[in-house]
Amino acid sequence: MSNCGETLMAISSLIEYEQASPEVRAVYDEIMATRQTDRVNNFWKAIAHDPATLRRTWQSVKEIMLPGALDALTKEMIYVAVSVTNQCNYCIASHSAAARKAGMTDSMFSELMAVVGMANETNRLASGYQVEIDEQFKVR
Amino acid sequence: MSNCGETLMAISSLIEYEQASPEVRAVYDEIMATRQTDRVNNFWKAIAHDPATLRRTWQSVKEIMLPGALDALTKEMIYVAVSVTNQCNYCIASHSAAARKAGMTDSMFSELMAVVGMANETNRLASGYQVEIDEQFKVR
Amino acid sequence: MSNCGETLMAISSLIEYEQASPEVRAVYDEIMATRQTDRVNNFWKAIAHDPATLRRTWQSVKEIMLPGALDALTKEMIYVAVSVTNQCNYCIASHSAAARKAGMTDSMFSELMAVVGMANETNRLASGYQVEIDEQFKVR
Amino acid sequence: MSNCGETLMAISSLIEYEQASPEVRAVYDEIMATRQTDRVNNFWKAIAHDPATLRRTWQSVKEIMLPGALDALTKEMIYVAVSVTNQCNYCIASHSAAARKAGMTDSMFSELMAVVGMANETNRLASGYQVEIDEQFKVR
Amino acid sequence: MSNCGETLMAISSLIEYEQASPEVRAVYDEIMATRQTDRVNNFWKAIAHDPATLRRTWQSVKEIMLPGALDALTKEMIYVAVSVTNQCNYCIASHSAAARKAGMTDSMFSELMAVVGMANETNRLASGYQVEIDEQFKVR
Amino acid sequence: MSNCGETLMAISSLIEYEQASPEVRAVYDEIMATRQTDRVNNFWKAIAHDPATLRRTWQSVKEIMLPGALDALTKEMIYVAVSVTNQCNYCIASHSAAARKAGMTDSMFSELMAVVGMANETNRLASGYQVEIDEQFKVR
Repeated sequence: MSNCGETLMAISSLIEYEQASPEVRAVYDEIMATRQTDRVNNFWKAIAHDPATLRRTWQSVKEIMLPGALDALTKEMIYVAVSVTNQCNYCIASHSAAARKAGMTDSMFSELMAVVGMANETNRLASGYQVEIDEQFKVR
Repeated sequence: MSNCGETLMAISSLIEYEQASPEVRAVYDEIMATRQTDRVNNFWKAIAHDPATLRRTWQSVKEIMLPGALDALTKEMIYVAVSVTNQCNYCIASHSAAARKAGMTDSMFSELMAVVGMANETNRLASGYQVEIDEQFKVR
Repeated sequence: MSNCGETLMAISSLIEYEQASPEVRAVYDEIMATRQTDRVNNFWKAIAHDPATLRRTWQSVKEIMLPGALDALTKEMIYVAVSVTNQCNYCIASHSAAARKAGMTDSMFSELMAVVGMANETNRLASGYQVEIDEQFKVR
Repeated sequence: MSNCGETLMAISSLIEYEQASPEVRAVYDEIMATRQTDRVNNFWKAIAHDPATLRRTWQSVKEIMLPGALDALTKEMIYVAVSVTNQCNYCIASHSAAARKAGMTDSMFSELMAVVGMANETNRLASGYQVEIDEQFKVR
Repeated sequence: MSNCGETLMAISSLIEYEQASPEVRAVYDEIMATRQTDRVNNFWKAIAHDPATLRRTWQSVKEIMLPGALDALTKEMIYVAVSVTNQCNYCIASHSAAARKAGMTDSMFSELMAVVGMANETNRLASGYQVEIDEQFKVR
Repeated sequence: MSNCGETLMAISSLIEYEQASPEVRAVYDEIMATRQTDRVNNFWKAIAHDPATLRRTWQSVKEIMLPGALDALTKEMIYVAVSVTNQCNYCIASHSAAARKAGMTDSMFSELMAVVGMANETNRLASGYQVEIDEQFKVR
């Protein structure tokens, strides 16, 4: 059981740049360059215990969050909407900060929260009243 | 138990305009006028069994979905993001249609889905790895 | 793969009384006796593929749903509240019917839905605004 | 980024009565009068950053939680059931306290938890076994 | 609005091999080769409307589901556990089939469901009783 | 209200062996004997306020987690998968520790997290794209 404790410590500690393998450092470097910052968030330092997941997740996030048909701010606000719905405290904190960095004002945040709250409410009213999908909304 | 069946029928049926009370009709009228359509979605016809909830929900939705710091399209896409995360089929169908009506293109929909999917994934990685909130993300 | 199809059929079919083992029949008999009905819901007929789960689940449900400090109707309404929050269509349908059988009126159902919807909304506002627990609500 | 930090501080701080605008104070006054207390919970002080959401949420909560076909205690217990299902720690803490204030005894709390736990279990058994809704439970 | 209907049809239809672009076909070919089947599931045909998401999702799924420290069957059962918890009907159906193809017997399925149900129950008991994490389980 | 505070204290405190009733002690004894440890987790000490729930939950957990068609480690990892999906921090911490005790290595944990994350992502893609269940996956 003390072994167990040590292993837990190992997997849960954060992998800092200094102790990271070249493979992990390469991802950290890319994260910092892409985000124009000299800091890597705890999220990446935690999943760095699994370099394959670190690399794959970063590649996916980078590709998905790149401005395209939707701009960076809209994408970050959608990220917040999902994280709030799932009650993921870490993600709420980190993506709210990211959204603000991308330009979210207090008013935008307030309206975002209002929509997220309302959607969570009407989702349940729709289910609870067992509402059937309108013919015109059916997709096939 | 046959009574039970009848009651179920009653509460679950949709209240059409013709059979609606003046109070319910007033909300239907406002919905159609606001949305510039001659149709009321099943959602409203279902919750119309409870005129107080119908009125309150409509007033809240109307107020919240009004373009403000966020435009109508962004708000509808956030609604879709929440509904997809909650797996609410009715809401996914109706708000995807509303988002398209508000201007969501196929590319926007695709990117919306990509962000929603990714956020649901990293929400769990953050929780599973028990990542602590970075000092700079703490709000108090 | 045809084997796979057959197995799926087997596990997903409903085990009717006539084909049930004595062990399963004994549970069915108890369900019908307790609920004073001559019908066993599909839920029990489906999980009867695993007699151990059937028995354990029925024993737990029977013990938990017995009127105690909370009456049967209140318990059924709580069951509906959870099922609606989880978007479990089968459970919404079956427990809404059970709640009506236990005395839930249309007004009670409407108020139940209103509370469930509101709670789902404010749950997200609390998380999104990262509200800290008030000192007086802390339990330890 | 230091600006970002300041903004986060602003939105996340709690708006105390002394610093509140007349509009926000009016809601605080009504909350304290309705609940016969001289304290406003952190939840309201946090969402007060958005006076429109504060007002609308309070009006809805006040209307919905008023005793009607369901009494105040039952409504608070339903609120707890939803909050526990959603794993919203703030809401679990605040509404458990509210339910106790409304008369929830230790026995009632225990039975509430037992039903909530059981419903969450059988919700998944129903989905996992892909149980079809019984004919008699179908509402349309 | 008729335009809207047409667009919905477009995005929701399934992209069959015959109509697929070379980029999409390449992914379909790889899916069929990897899974040693001549059929592509609806899931892939639906997200093929967004070739970038199709490619990225397939690459991730392929990499993640490859037998490693965990075998293919265990991974498929974990997939089912998540899908059941989220009440995603499509995923429950498709991954239950995949798990059976990978060797899941009726007994394994029954035990999987029992654990998933129980975990969903105790998750809520832990939250509802506001249980603090034991010192020895803390990871930092 | 001070009474309320006292009651909260009572229900939320942990019931230690020394203060436990014979009925509760009997369950504690069985937990420690089964798990070959001299410690009872906070979870059990918290729900011990309701001896009926303590006994029933323990009996169910003991029966379900017993190695059968699935071994103990697989069952613990499924428990973790559900807890992570539900964002239950207590359960993530306690069952990750239990899984490690049962033999989960760092590599297994990493792959478990990768599958859980991916499943949560594709669950939403399937819902968002409103994918219909393939004929061959339908069970009835």
